[in-house]
Amino acid sequence: MSSEIKTIGVLTSGGDAPGMNAAIRAVVRAALFKGYKVKGVRHGYNGLLTGDIVDMNLRSVSEIIHRGGTILYTARCLEFKTLEGQQKAAQACREAGIDTLVVIGGDGSFRGAKDMAAQGIPCIGIPGTIDNDIACSDYTIGYDTAMNTAVEMIDKLRDTTQSHDRCSVVEVMGRNAGYIALNTGIAVGALVTLIPEVPFDLDRDVISKMKETQKTGKKHFIIVVAEGAGKASDIANEIQARTGIDSRATVLGHVQRGGSPTLRDRVTASRMGYHAIELINKGIFNRVVATRAESIVDYDISVALSMYKTIDTALLDISHAISI
Amino acid sequence: MSSEIKTIGVLTSGGDAPGMNAAIRAVVRAALFKGYKVKGVRHGYNGLLTGDIVDMNLRSVSEIIHRGGTILYTARCLEFKTLEGQQKAAQACREAGIDTLVVIGGDGSFRGAKDMAAQGIPCIGIPGTIDNDIACSDYTIGYDTAMNTAVEMIDKLRDTTQSHDRCSVVEVMGRNAGYIALNTGIAVGALVTLIPEVPFDLDRDVISKMKETQKTGKKHFIIVVAEGAGKASDIANEIQARTGIDSRATVLGHVQRGGSPTLRDRVTASRMGYHAIELINKGIFNRVVATRAESIVDYDISVALSMYKTIDTALLDISHAISI
Amino acid sequence: MSSEIKTIGVLTSGGDAPGMNAAIRAVVRAALFKGYKVKGVRHGYNGLLTGDIVDMNLRSVSEIIHRGGTILYTARCLEFKTLEGQQKAAQACREAGIDTLVVIGGDGSFRGAKDMAAQGIPCIGIPGTIDNDIACSDYTIGYDTAMNTAVEMIDKLRDTTQSHDRCSVVEVMGRNAGYIALNTGIAVGALVTLIPEVPFDLDRDVISKMKETQKTGKKHFIIVVAEGAGKASDIANEIQARTGIDSRATVLGHVQRGGSPTLRDRVTASRMGYHAIELINKGIFNRVVATRAESIVDYDISVALSMYKTIDTALLDISHAISI
Amino acid sequence: MSSEIKTIGVLTSGGDAPGMNAAIRAVVRAALFKGYKVKGVRHGYNGLLTGDIVDMNLRSVSEIIHRGGTILYTARCLEFKTLEGQQKAAQACREAGIDTLVVIGGDGSFRGAKDMAAQGIPCIGIPGTIDNDIACSDYTIGYDTAMNTAVEMIDKLRDTTQSHDRCSVVEVMGRNAGYIALNTGIAVGALVTLIPEVPFDLDRDVISKMKETQKTGKKHFIIVVAEGAGKASDIANEIQARTGIDSRATVLGHVQRGGSPTLRDRVTASRMGYHAIELINKGIFNRVVATRAESIVDYDISVALSMYKTIDTALLDISHAISI
Repeated sequence: MSSEIKTIGVLTSGGDAPGMNAAIRAVVRAALFKGYKVKGVRHGYNGLLTGDIVDMNLRSVSEIIHRGGTILYTARCLEFKTLEGQQKAAQACREAGIDTLVVIGGDGSFRGAKDMAAQGIPCIGIPGTIDNDIACSDYTIGYDTAMNTAVEMIDKLRDTTQSHDRCSVVEVMGRNAGYIALNTGIAVGALVTLIPEVPFDLDRDVISKMKETQKTGKKHFIIVVAEGAGKASDIANEIQARTGIDSRATVLGHVQRGGSPTLRDRVTASRMGYHAIELINKGIFNRVVATRAESIVDYDISVALSMYKTIDTALLDISHAISI
Repeated sequence: MSSEIKTIGVLTSGGDAPGMNAAIRAVVRAALFKGYKVKGVRHGYNGLLTGDIVDMNLRSVSEIIHRGGTILYTARCLEFKTLEGQQKAAQACREAGIDTLVVIGGDGSFRGAKDMAAQGIPCIGIPGTIDNDIACSDYTIGYDTAMNTAVEMIDKLRDTTQSHDRCSVVEVMGRNAGYIALNTGIAVGALVTLIPEVPFDLDRDVISKMKETQKTGKKHFIIVVAEGAGKASDIANEIQARTGIDSRATVLGHVQRGGSPTLRDRVTASRMGYHAIELINKGIFNRVVATRAESIVDYDISVALSMYKTIDTALLDISHAISI
Repeated sequence: MSSEIKTIGVLTSGGDAPGMNAAIRAVVRAALFKGYKVKGVRHGYNGLLTGDIVDMNLRSVSEIIHRGGTILYTARCLEFKTLEGQQKAAQACREAGIDTLVVIGGDGSFRGAKDMAAQGIPCIGIPGTIDNDIACSDYTIGYDTAMNTAVEMIDKLRDTTQSHDRCSVVEVMGRNAGYIALNTGIAVGALVTLIPEVPFDLDRDVISKMKETQKTGKKHFIIVVAEGAGKASDIANEIQARTGIDSRATVLGHVQRGGSPTLRDRVTASRMGYHAIELINKGIFNRVVATRAESIVDYDISVALSMYKTIDTALLDISHAISI
Repeated sequence: MSSEIKTIGVLTSGGDAPGMNAAIRAVVRAALFKGYKVKGVRHGYNGLLTGDIVDMNLRSVSEIIHRGGTILYTARCLEFKTLEGQQKAAQACREAGIDTLVVIGGDGSFRGAKDMAAQGIPCIGIPGTIDNDIACSDYTIGYDTAMNTAVEMIDKLRDTTQSHDRCSVVEVMGRNAGYIALNTGIAVGALVTLIPEVPFDLDRDVISKMKETQKTGKKHFIIVVAEGAGKASDIANEIQARTGIDSRATVLGHVQRGGSPTLRDRVTASRMGYHAIELINKGIFNRVVATRAESIVDYDISVALSMYKTIDTALLDISHAISI
């Protein structure tokens, strides 16, 4: 047990993600197991400014591993973006006896953690976001659940698409990143998947492929589009206008953010939460926990925030070859 | 076995609904069991005009009871709305040796069945539509599945709504009828449910109730709205403007039309399909099969089409009392 | 509001069932809505004897409508079966200020309610049991969920049964009643369904039907058996010995008791809970709430306990005709 | 395109696994995309001996990516284990014009592939088994789905376990390997997970931990046991005898083998199937496709069969620390 650290705070920040509760549970239980006290900060960094801080014991995190959302709530906090807000938050930690903070969230949350560290409160970040847009980590908590939710919904759409010989254009989450769209597109056998990272030409990449596969007997079509790549309704209208095929748009929306986490999200969250406490126990701070090649690793927060992640466009080639 | 009838045709028409396959299976199997021949007409009445008719045997309907959509496909058919089209369709039946037709669909499909009967092809209708808007039947095939799908999606939305102390405004299917919305609203504990049958005042019925329950500690809200009662995005914007509560709209859309049917839809479809063949076997024609008080009954098609169904607003009172 | 009654107690007793939480929620909210106080008694009648009684407010039942199990816990209570135990329980009600008790459970729980009434504590019963074995009610809370859970599991079994050309013998809940088995059997397309109410001969009813359908090309088989009708492993062994078809037994077990309730269970539970409070509000006591032909009705407890329910064997005929 | 190879055969062998259909689809589509002909061999190696071989076109694998089981069926084949059987199978390939064979299955299937190669039919293996017991691959097709199915079922069990303050002992698949049990145990928050790789003492590892956590207020317990580590019913009986806690055994059984594959299984299967054809296209044969650190790689079949895989017992430490 690190001699300096007696009490660990934990919070969730930014958009919620399924598996955050499993991460909270692992942080709380592993910390208590190693002899620390634990406090939960509610509603993100906001809770530090408003004093919304609760003691956590072993039973505080019972019966949550399978629940979506976050029992600690989450919120944006404008005040915390100012130096004054950060100083106030650090002071609140000291007054609450919180020696270090585990922050579960995305890049914005980690920038906050870095700010807290600058104010004397060492932090550990855990990547929790459905978007998988954290550069240092192959995989973020909530990503697998969000994709499986999208797949289940599109499987239902498939039934009606097929019964009516239609084209379904489905908009999935991903304003800046095509991770969800790309994998979901492969998993549902989408004819074409459109992502923000790869420019596309509707005629060349969608219409002509539809016409080509029609010749092999294909009569219904699923097109997956990341929200950052285009608007489903626009694309559906275009397709219908140019092909005559009855085309419908569906926006899967916030349903993708919720639901009971998958095994993968629960296990990753548990491992990451445990790893965070191990780092603290070794006196190592200001790291972001991450997965690399299915192992749990960690990076300096500043380094993590400066990293850049590219999407594996080889998956597009595979998708192109087998969705015909 | 009815002496006049040797071959039974079966088709699905209008919007598809989960459980239609279970109905097809029951029609085909029960007919073969009683010694009839069965032909499947594909793509609704259209299949009669295009000759898209296939022989059905016991194995043609294997492994479909659990599948959404319809293996016989469905479509609208403009040509069939003309007298000439109807005469042509009846002639096609005679040429294919189809002596009677079982039509699975909604009111529009039953009007078609009545038209076929006028051209000498006796028909039986089976109510298959997720909207439950068939007056003679308490319950239509697909309705239970559609509502359970809506409930599952809103349960996921609930997680993120709660984590962020938000208001979720969810638009469910129901252009003219509030059945799905009303039951779904009760099942998800919606604060308010808006349906086309009951006019509402946003301030009085929604905003003031939100403010009242806030006083009891409630911080997140689910509002269910039938598509015929209003646009989710408009309502969400209004709520946010007047309460300051972060409000998001979600349109569940066509996902509600698909998916593996629930037990209730499978059992009802099986019973209805069997009943249709029993009617034919007794020489009774031009009836719509229906459920009344959990029994399977039937009505003359013309009578069925002239009936009127009201929504049980007592459910709104219950919903109002327990969603606080 | 009934002048005599100020505080309503609510408890769940016997085996738990999905939807019990929705019923608790409706009882608590409707009671508070009408101006009563509400106390929750935990662990069934046991909680009266041990003083495990908690105040319930509007927020005590937030976020439970979608959860399986019962937040009030349930238990058997041997002591309560004695007159002395009943007197003690009634005295505990008086001391806790509980004027009337809403009991959610099965026949055993209603017998307890009758005993409480005899000791001066008027009661209302709500049928909550997955087995649907309450004579006065067409339908009990939890029954629809249990059947849908069984159907989902058997749908998964179907995949592997089909891939291997096997026979799956699946044992579902129902020690004394075949309701779950009968409906589940129709919904999964079971070749044969065995229930305790109808004696069967393995050779005549199962083996010979398997052989007959094999001739039509059928190669895999699902047999559903209620636990009260036979042991899945014995039946699977017999089938394999007599047909040579690789046969496997699966016991679905307690998984059927849990899970998020279906829409039907949530809506029925909400309506029943509301009805219970309406009865109390009208000064009507010692009734069991029930469904009849999709309406909510009520019966005198003693009458309800003396009623007898038969299973609709017409469903067996339908099942026989369409599962070939 | 490899000059020697014109026609590719594909088969599934051994126990079926969710995702096998996605792999078949990828093999067929990628092969056709690159200009090969494809034939499907049904019922495993058996299909070679019985001539159960069908031509596959683009549409033969439509609408299967989301389905459990295998459209090519699978079977054991005793005759194929003899040299004579292998010679006959190779001869059947030559007669059917199959130049190379893609075999989707487990180690037993790969030994068969090696035997075929010895008879002059080059092969590629793709790991498809829910057990994850293929040494060369981090991950096998079907494993993720099987674990998520187990998790969903145990989540339902949790409801009833909690309502009754019980202990549930759940037996999951894994005769020789604890992979499913270990990850499932973490994901459901099992108090203890018993696997064949790690000997256990019931008193020390289970009973004493139960008693210890009871002191912190824990009242219900989930114990996960791999089928190779012990019998759930025996363990439940022992626990109940020694602790007095009502304990129930559940065997999840073959349900774990079926169901619609998860996103991960569909994507991995698609990538592996595509990779298999890429190898063939490069003239590389007798390899097993595998995942290593989330990449798709391949190994010589003989090398793959000689590899050994150990379970990551670090997960047990994590599980021990956070399940209290």
